[in-house]
Amino acid sequence: MKFSFELLKTDKTGARLGRMSTPHGEFATPVFMPVGTKAAVKAVSPEELEAAGAGIILANTYHLYLRPGHELIRDLGGLHSFMHWAGPILTDSGGFQVFSLGKLRQLDETGVSFRSHLDGAKCTLTPESAIEVQEALGADIIMPLDECTPYPAEREYAVNSMNLTHRWALRCKKAKKDNGQALFGIVQGGMYEDLRRESAKAVTEIGFDGYALGGLSVGEEKPLMYGIIARSAPLLPAASPRYLMGVGTPEDLVYAVEHGIDMFDCVMPTRNARNGTLFTRSGKLVIKNGQYEKDSRPVEDGCGCYTCGNYSRAYLRHLYMSGEMLGSRLNTIHNLFYYAALMRQMQRAIKEDAFAQFKRGFYSGLERP
Amino acid sequence: MKFSFELLKTDKTGARLGRMSTPHGEFATPVFMPVGTKAAVKAVSPEELEAAGAGIILANTYHLYLRPGHELIRDLGGLHSFMHWAGPILTDSGGFQVFSLGKLRQLDETGVSFRSHLDGAKCTLTPESAIEVQEALGADIIMPLDECTPYPAEREYAVNSMNLTHRWALRCKKAKKDNGQALFGIVQGGMYEDLRRESAKAVTEIGFDGYALGGLSVGEEKPLMYGIIARSAPLLPAASPRYLMGVGTPEDLVYAVEHGIDMFDCVMPTRNARNGTLFTRSGKLVIKNGQYEKDSRPVEDGCGCYTCGNYSRAYLRHLYMSGEMLGSRLNTIHNLFYYAALMRQMQRAIKEDAFAQFKRGFYSGLERP
Repeated sequence: MKFSFELLKTDKTGARLGRMSTPHGEFATPVFMPVGTKAAVKAVSPEELEAAGAGIILANTYHLYLRPGHELIRDLGGLHSFMHWAGPILTDSGGFQVFSLGKLRQLDETGVSFRSHLDGAKCTLTPESAIEVQEALGADIIMPLDECTPYPAEREYAVNSMNLTHRWALRCKKAKKDNGQALFGIVQGGMYEDLRRESAKAVTEIGFDGYALGGLSVGEEKPLMYGIIARSAPLLPAASPRYLMGVGTPEDLVYAVEHGIDMFDCVMPTRNARNGTLFTRSGKLVIKNGQYEKDSRPVEDGCGCYTCGNYSRAYLRHLYMSGEMLGSRLNTIHNLFYYAALMRQMQRAIKEDAFAQFKRGFYSGLERP
Repeated sequence: MKFSFELLKTDKTGARLGRMSTPHGEFATPVFMPVGTKAAVKAVSPEELEAAGAGIILANTYHLYLRPGHELIRDLGGLHSFMHWAGPILTDSGGFQVFSLGKLRQLDETGVSFRSHLDGAKCTLTPESAIEVQEALGADIIMPLDECTPYPAEREYAVNSMNLTHRWALRCKKAKKDNGQALFGIVQGGMYEDLRRESAKAVTEIGFDGYALGGLSVGEEKPLMYGIIARSAPLLPAASPRYLMGVGTPEDLVYAVEHGIDMFDCVMPTRNARNGTLFTRSGKLVIKNGQYEKDSRPVEDGCGCYTCGNYSRAYLRHLYMSGEMLGSRLNTIHNLFYYAALMRQMQRAIKEDAFAQFKRGFYSGLERP
């Protein structure tokens, strides 16, 4: 199967229902991608991911490049085979991780040099090598190397950073083989709306299989992020998928879907699960709280996940307090199911042109005690 | 179903094939019980335990008494329901764990006082309360409180310790309700063969549903342990199940089965798994070793476990090196499958009166590079 995206429906709010096809299967959008940084979504198996409703997962170029190495993964048949996940995969380019290294990295026109967080070894990624690494990994959707503009950033910095990202995007597109992998473009521009507009235009002109908003959820206030999302998404081609990188909470997802975003990734459901925070229709449930000590109910009544079907809050609390890794796993299964169910509910609402109504129900649910 | 044990066959070596029935199901012996100390076999789900061939699991009275508390578990429907394991469970009495506390415990005729390893709170267990706790937990097979005689121990200490264990055993039997739970007796006597003989006689005279050898694998040399096993097992009633507590390696199991032991528990397959040590027909495989870096083979060719069916040594090594908990889980699945398969092989060999032949094959397998 080749990569394709079909926009099936746009709700009157602007929320979009779509269908994405990739060499490893298709899925409906809006979609949430669980994060499998090191070729494993922490604590869960591929079968559990599938049962939790994950249609596509994300893996991390930066981490896999450092360990075990992209050539090793390629020689073992590629990322899908290596991690026993037969469905679609997106790899990010490593831009965000390199950005996170702060002073450990040096950036110039050619690319980025950095010290491995594992052993301090000097490494480099160029736009060309980032593509090469991702071609070796063999994900269905790959991302160009970009500079994730930090926040706050002076306008001059944001301009230069954005322009570098554009030049790199062009180099990535040129370097990429015609091998069936989809390549998305990344819009930067910091928190400057005019730069976001300029970036959307530049990246669209280069032309990609999909478009991502990068450089958000990097420390800015929510209203600022929401403003950028609301005003950037409509600048992207309606016929192409729109991916909001690294975001976010259930509320963020509902907001962004309403404003026309189709794809998301975030460590929140998986990381929070390991910290004992569970998502429910009525908000977060912190499993270590004493109130759940003898609570025989599932995390969420009516939830269809394996965890809620078989375990009580009291047991999950016990596992958490006892440091049993089974707890991380059961919590992760629930949170990923919650995120996938939320996306399915949004898909249905869009189909029925009832997104505004869905949103009201979503927020009134959160207000319940 | 009530508790019962049927001795189906004794091989010419002395190895025994049996069938045990419990209120939560039946299983063939010799059997290995995976250890679920805190109401969870570390890193795996009940479904995975079942798929790995576990017929009965062990949980820990001491740990569950301290956290989350036996009354909580009773109020939530008992241990089976709490941990979502529908099969047979054996709970040990806490004797061994209290023994492990060393100077943190005080022993007298009434019972044992100790400081909780969790919060330092003062706790006591008496023979009667150990039974009460285990009745609240609701395991299929429960154990009396005993003193696990340390090694080395002066003869006088071993005599007194053994006699205390006998008096406690009687109190446990008297305290126990007629509720369908089976109660086993524990033979102590340190490394003194005559005391072991005396203990076997005393415990048998009290009369239990099964008999355990306690106080082994506590630091003594293997030949010493093997001698005690070989000479103690035949002293126990042939018609009752014989349980060797806390042992051991695959070699230990093969040795003890040959000498008439029916049941085992040990943290070895699960703990070693988390440390990256995998059991195979040809010995231990240490997954972090560099030789497995690019090894596309499963842990063991022909192994029927989920891990070997879907993942390479290279991937398991990557998970181990990356600290991904999925690695602990996949390794645990393999090791438990290996142990269960070993028990099945022994059962088959006994059935065919071919245990000696099985043993030769087992050891020649270990010698293979």
